[in-house]
Amino acid sequence: MALYVQKYGGTSVGSIERIEAVADKVKSFHDAGHQLVVAVSAMSGETNRLIGLAKGISDSPTPREMDVLVSTGEQVTIALLAMALQKRGVNARSFTGWQVGIKTDSAYMKARIEDIDTQAMRKQLDAGGVVIVAGFQGIDDDNSITTLGRGGSDTTGVALAAALGADECQIYTDVDGVYTTDPRVVPAARRMDKVTFEEMLEMASLGSKILQIRSVEFAGKYKVPLRVLSSFKEGNGTLITMEEISSVENPVISGIAFNRDEAKLTLKGVPDVPGVASRILVPISDANIEVDMIVQNVSEDGTTDFTFTVNRSDYQKALKILGNLSQELNAREATGTDDICKVSMVGVGMRSHAGVASKMFKVLADENINILAITTSEIKISVVIAEKYLELAVRALHTAFGLDAEEQAE
Amino acid sequence: MALYVQKYGGTSVGSIERIEAVADKVKSFHDAGHQLVVAVSAMSGETNRLIGLAKGISDSPTPREMDVLVSTGEQVTIALLAMALQKRGVNARSFTGWQVGIKTDSAYMKARIEDIDTQAMRKQLDAGGVVIVAGFQGIDDDNSITTLGRGGSDTTGVALAAALGADECQIYTDVDGVYTTDPRVVPAARRMDKVTFEEMLEMASLGSKILQIRSVEFAGKYKVPLRVLSSFKEGNGTLITMEEISSVENPVISGIAFNRDEAKLTLKGVPDVPGVASRILVPISDANIEVDMIVQNVSEDGTTDFTFTVNRSDYQKALKILGNLSQELNAREATGTDDICKVSMVGVGMRSHAGVASKMFKVLADENINILAITTSEIKISVVIAEKYLELAVRALHTAFGLDAEEQAE
Repeated sequence: MALYVQKYGGTSVGSIERIEAVADKVKSFHDAGHQLVVAVSAMSGETNRLIGLAKGISDSPTPREMDVLVSTGEQVTIALLAMALQKRGVNARSFTGWQVGIKTDSAYMKARIEDIDTQAMRKQLDAGGVVIVAGFQGIDDDNSITTLGRGGSDTTGVALAAALGADECQIYTDVDGVYTTDPRVVPAARRMDKVTFEEMLEMASLGSKILQIRSVEFAGKYKVPLRVLSSFKEGNGTLITMEEISSVENPVISGIAFNRDEAKLTLKGVPDVPGVASRILVPISDANIEVDMIVQNVSEDGTTDFTFTVNRSDYQKALKILGNLSQELNAREATGTDDICKVSMVGVGMRSHAGVASKMFKVLADENINILAITTSEIKISVVIAEKYLELAVRALHTAFGLDAEEQAE
Repeated sequence: MALYVQKYGGTSVGSIERIEAVADKVKSFHDAGHQLVVAVSAMSGETNRLIGLAKGISDSPTPREMDVLVSTGEQVTIALLAMALQKRGVNARSFTGWQVGIKTDSAYMKARIEDIDTQAMRKQLDAGGVVIVAGFQGIDDDNSITTLGRGGSDTTGVALAAALGADECQIYTDVDGVYTTDPRVVPAARRMDKVTFEEMLEMASLGSKILQIRSVEFAGKYKVPLRVLSSFKEGNGTLITMEEISSVENPVISGIAFNRDEAKLTLKGVPDVPGVASRILVPISDANIEVDMIVQNVSEDGTTDFTFTVNRSDYQKALKILGNLSQELNAREATGTDDICKVSMVGVGMRSHAGVASKMFKVLADENINILAITTSEIKISVVIAEKYLELAVRALHTAFGLDAEEQAE
């Protein structure tokens, strides 16, 4: 008998029929003798409907009242799911964020959970009942309703699991697990049975948008085993785990992430003196532009080329700032391009295997793909290449590193 | 400077445009220096939409979860109205039932208010702000959400006014006040400037469905001056008052109510012995049938005719019970008809004016309308007549008792 926290997203509870299907799934776990706490999102479309009402009144509605408004979405779902379980003879009881006692700070629309009171949930679990909790919401010190921001229901699930010391937090989504790369780009992509938290964080932040990154961080911090499963298909999904994965099942590379949403800027021929990096990056960050990769070439003739990437939507703004800096810093030229993408290979196995980077560069060279920039971390190698080569590069690397589903290519 | 509690119903907040209009109205009171607590209903149609979702899951959803579900309707409205006021530069803050501290019993879907904590409201009022409260809802001892049942937002308004010692509770509806009778039946019906609580209670329970009867009782009990006004038209509406209305402005009859929703049953030739009334009425009330008027004729030859009225939807059930009783009690015959209606004249002026009943009977006789049953109370005379005479009777009485709007008929 285990204690599971399950989280069902908006698509999984998007209609009466789907709520009934979730109730069937929850009941099957309950019948098997498990204790269950179920966190749910608003029915898909409902949050947008509510935001639409607010926008009808004001372009900039106050965040406190936005949270009063949108938190009703999850409240509707908990009531309906509780009814569906009760119809099936299961003792179920709904809890809003404030009824559970999910305490947050007062940052409306993007609040952070500070504490969870488990007393009310324990009482219901001890009585053999299922606990249904409204995801995405909490209450601040002032008794005002808060929300955790978009996707925050994942965080609710993980936080509940941490507070209750649950055996597993199961996130039900419309995909059946975490894949070695995007199956739309590489049809041979394979679902991973297990992935480490570190790998998942690198994958998530690089554009594999399955789990909200904050919920993964949270799960890692509180050592909550996290599993991603499909609401619609049977299967074991992907377990995100703290455990070191044994070397037998531990491939060198776990997955390949990519991101089209990048632009690259270069300041050429900058005098190579101490402090030049911060003189370039401070004005960029002052303009609220987030910098992703940073590359500084080895200096020749007393000057250096300084390259960095930003989100594509910030490209023009960043290029203008760089143009001004070029004169100020007496650099040769400010250039850039937004026809690029980033491809990243992720894997804890890199730690113990040399030669991953050189093999990666060789695979790309064999395909005549020019590498525009490189960064590496302990478990990740990222390269910037021209966007037109994205599919070619990801497929070639996926095959070369033995990630393809059927026959191992090498 | 006064403290007003205002209540706006579902039609008054039925769209973004109407919520904006309510915000304009609230702002004008606030600008005039008054303190304002505003209770609102769900946007019209919203409660039915939510009930429809529940019915999609279960024919008999649990009352606790129904309240979790439907209470979201008012929560949406308070957020939107607060936003609309904030857009107009008015300090406004929304409160759900539990945030205000509206304590109720645990009778889900029909809870009764037990206590209201005014502290949070006072803080907002003292800061010069408007308080917006979700009507129709509260919280029980177990921290569960409760609702007061349909129309309960009126009760919320009155209860808030009582708790705060407000100068007036203003109920904004889609009619501009209480009329001497239904203007759809009598075009000459006149809006009353004032009506006493006793009269309003008699009018409300007799089918003039403007205010929820419980809210009028509540207002009377706690001596809260109550005013019915239109959300859409300017005007002073009708004040429902504890004060004795001065004899100059005090007409003998204040208004004429009527009810088509009645059926009449008679047990003829019942042996006239003690206890016979209860032997007839106990089986009726055991079948959950509410009895309205009861008339027992003067006994002749040791037997009596026993007549009562019930709601028309209970007619067949009541007639069947009476058929069985007829044999048991050795009565002559059980009969009935549902082609009837009830017409009632209401007025505190009756207390000091003799002859109201005889004048009423003469007016009906002059129109050749046969009276099937009569009951009287201190401030009300009700007659049962054939339904086809309803309009004729109400118009004739309205004119005869000087209630017509333009020229007094008599």
